[in-house]
Amino acid sequence: MMYLSLFLFVITVYSLISTNATYVVNRYDDIECNLKPELIKEIASYKNVTRTIMDEIISNGYGRTMYKQYSDFIDTFGARPSGSITLEKSIDHMINLTIENGLNDVTTEEVEVPHWVRGLESVVMLSPRQKNIAVIGLGTSVSTPPDGITAEIIVISSFKELENTDDKYIKGKIVLFDAHYVTYGDTVIYRSQGASKASKKGAVASLIRSITPFSIYSPHTGAQFYEANVTKIPTAAITLEDADLLRRLQDDGEKIIINIKMFSTYDQKKSRNTIVDLKGKEQPEKLVIVSGHIDSWDVGQGAMDDGGGMIISWFTPVILNLLQLKPRRTIRAILWTSEEPGLIGAAAYLNKHIHELSNINFIMESDEGTFSPRGLDVAGSKIARCIVGEVLKLFSPIDEMTNSGGPGSDITLFVNKGIPGASLLNKNERYFWFHHSEGDTMNVQNMADVVDCAAFWAAVSYVIADISVDIPR
Amino acid sequence: MMYLSLFLFVITVYSLISTNATYVVNRYDDIECNLKPELIKEIASYKNVTRTIMDEIISNGYGRTMYKQYSDFIDTFGARPSGSITLEKSIDHMINLTIENGLNDVTTEEVEVPHWVRGLESVVMLSPRQKNIAVIGLGTSVSTPPDGITAEIIVISSFKELENTDDKYIKGKIVLFDAHYVTYGDTVIYRSQGASKASKKGAVASLIRSITPFSIYSPHTGAQFYEANVTKIPTAAITLEDADLLRRLQDDGEKIIINIKMFSTYDQKKSRNTIVDLKGKEQPEKLVIVSGHIDSWDVGQGAMDDGGGMIISWFTPVILNLLQLKPRRTIRAILWTSEEPGLIGAAAYLNKHIHELSNINFIMESDEGTFSPRGLDVAGSKIARCIVGEVLKLFSPIDEMTNSGGPGSDITLFVNKGIPGASLLNKNERYFWFHHSEGDTMNVQNMADVVDCAAFWAAVSYVIADISVDIPR
Repeated sequence: MMYLSLFLFVITVYSLISTNATYVVNRYDDIECNLKPELIKEIASYKNVTRTIMDEIISNGYGRTMYKQYSDFIDTFGARPSGSITLEKSIDHMINLTIENGLNDVTTEEVEVPHWVRGLESVVMLSPRQKNIAVIGLGTSVSTPPDGITAEIIVISSFKELENTDDKYIKGKIVLFDAHYVTYGDTVIYRSQGASKASKKGAVASLIRSITPFSIYSPHTGAQFYEANVTKIPTAAITLEDADLLRRLQDDGEKIIINIKMFSTYDQKKSRNTIVDLKGKEQPEKLVIVSGHIDSWDVGQGAMDDGGGMIISWFTPVILNLLQLKPRRTIRAILWTSEEPGLIGAAAYLNKHIHELSNINFIMESDEGTFSPRGLDVAGSKIARCIVGEVLKLFSPIDEMTNSGGPGSDITLFVNKGIPGASLLNKNERYFWFHHSEGDTMNVQNMADVVDCAAFWAAVSYVIADISVDIPR
Repeated sequence: MMYLSLFLFVITVYSLISTNATYVVNRYDDIECNLKPELIKEIASYKNVTRTIMDEIISNGYGRTMYKQYSDFIDTFGARPSGSITLEKSIDHMINLTIENGLNDVTTEEVEVPHWVRGLESVVMLSPRQKNIAVIGLGTSVSTPPDGITAEIIVISSFKELENTDDKYIKGKIVLFDAHYVTYGDTVIYRSQGASKASKKGAVASLIRSITPFSIYSPHTGAQFYEANVTKIPTAAITLEDADLLRRLQDDGEKIIINIKMFSTYDQKKSRNTIVDLKGKEQPEKLVIVSGHIDSWDVGQGAMDDGGGMIISWFTPVILNLLQLKPRRTIRAILWTSEEPGLIGAAAYLNKHIHELSNINFIMESDEGTFSPRGLDVAGSKIARCIVGEVLKLFSPIDEMTNSGGPGSDITLFVNKGIPGASLLNKNERYFWFHHSEGDTMNVQNMADVVDCAAFWAAVSYVIADISVDIPR
């Protein structure tokens, strides 16, 4: 039944939107499309309304107000780690702010979330000389004994090198994974999997070179995951500077001894996904979701990751409501909770709504910065990407379209289920300089850029939620 | 007598080196020169020897060896604060290294230096919310009482604003000088003088926005000086990020209360200026001095400030000796001690040698980075700059010449006495990102750039020390 109706649906969609004539939809991404001239014309007809939305936000003060709400939110709450009281207070604040801004359709869904609390952490090099080493534990790391662990360091470049190293050289030592940053995706595996891999070879603790291309002696945290049936060893990140120092000392034949102390507690707490709806005027059951996560790491202020993405997504239904622009379908902003420990809020939402996924027409997330906007990274069928590409033409020069295959963080869970989705492309070249570090503060943000992102995000969502055709699977 | 001989000297020099024909000496700095064609020809004749020096350093391995000596020095000693045992050990190391490299003419001159030792430091914002604020005390700051000082913050933009603020708004408060970075010279006055100025208005402590244009939540230390007859109040730097946060909170009408704790000790110790001579073959009493300082702040590793400048200056007589290139005059490398607390080593040298200053033909310092070399910032008479400009032509494209009026740090004491001198121009646009912070490590250095600096520094010193004419006052 399900497959037959899906088949009929696909046939219907194609007859409504496609023709035989092909053309290149987007100057950044050579896909050949064959959308019907009527649909192309319909999409082009949104030029005036998108201009209105963007003008109201950028020039008429709405964007400035939103930025002040954002800045006040960050200054008031600061870091909002999963399971913390501060996170829950910040969620209450956003609920109240929604209602104050005239949108009453705000609900929450409870989620059980990890609550890992960092205690004192220190690393001291004892030999060949005494030196303090800046350190930051990785989320879910176990503690050391009270006196810490004192052991020799072995510096390893890659999992391959670890594999090729005899266990006897690893046993009883602290492994430092000194993998240089290539891309976040390539390098983050040392953070997420390093401890387990080192433990299997007999290491007593593991460290990583922080996952960043640039440092002013800044350690970067993030989630890590112990494999089942592996001895859980303490694991932390150090700076690029100290990783290079330890590498040079090892290359010079020095025996490097360090003491590492790490303390933390770990339990579960209740949190909430926050859902803000601007109900569609014709097909309210159909959803265009815009999202960001409201939790952050416990260092820095969570301004960039993901205060910016959270605020522009929250702002989308709020501003459209203020402008009395009700689209055909419902625009739903979701402020995911507990993204940082591993998409916990998003997984709970997926699970709860697993039988209504066909209602999600399109899903968007901004979680890679709200610097100057460039366009969208779009996942979905060719026809879905053709339609979104056509929509992007309304926003030139914010009209880049890429196809990384995995847009967003939370929304990957939905995209992997075949739901078309997109993340915000923006000039985020320095994103990982600040990511998961004390450097994630309001200072990395620029009002004009965040306002531009918000304007683009609201306008593009509006068009997708209002056009006559669904975004096909 | 002294004046008469100086007059005769000037006349003689001019007749040897100047003519009536004028030309522009340097494409970066429009000074019209009228050097005699014989001198121009003589300087041009050094092309082969400068090429040899640079080739030996850059291509034949000498530079690579020096870089390893440099890197090992930094990795072995790390930070070398004034008055510390580590600094003295690092001086011993450089003495031994000089002798190991074949140059025995190395001496030291004792200097009494400040020994300010940082203890625990913390700043916590208590209201409007609890937040740790990264802090670094300024050199020579007094301690707080054991429980710290708890007081309201007032954020002030400038000395002018402080002056225009009624004392009653300052009394009993902690002043934060939130002066945005313009240039180091413009902005550093808030660090060096802020505490005294705030104290005079009744403040109980003072903070500064760190003197840097860019931050990843990095506080920057540096020297400060209490005026006589002013109550000494504790003083420290915070990050750009927190300065902006406190500014926003004040602008929103929040009452900001912080607790600041700072502990330190302060006494005097013995240290040494280190002097490495390559004696001149014809006029050994005449000196071309090349220099950098060997001490550093107590944070970071003192790799950039001023490990790089120290090593290339030390290397100049060492490499010329190894290459058996003895110039006419003596090349003297000086590794200044205790620069950071206020040019203490340089002042002691000036004082000790005050009656022999006429022997200093030219004085150079590298203390603003050893990134890719660009040329020289030259202070001195027009004729002095004409000659140095002519010498720089040998090194095109490393041939920029500027005239800031105050080249170097230590050597300003000598330049102010009328001695011509120069500092190394280099691509140091990011210098203040790392300066006096934990970010001053080997990671900001690049081997090829440091080697290029060393090659240029040695070759340009050689020419100045060997040409037939002195650099005139």
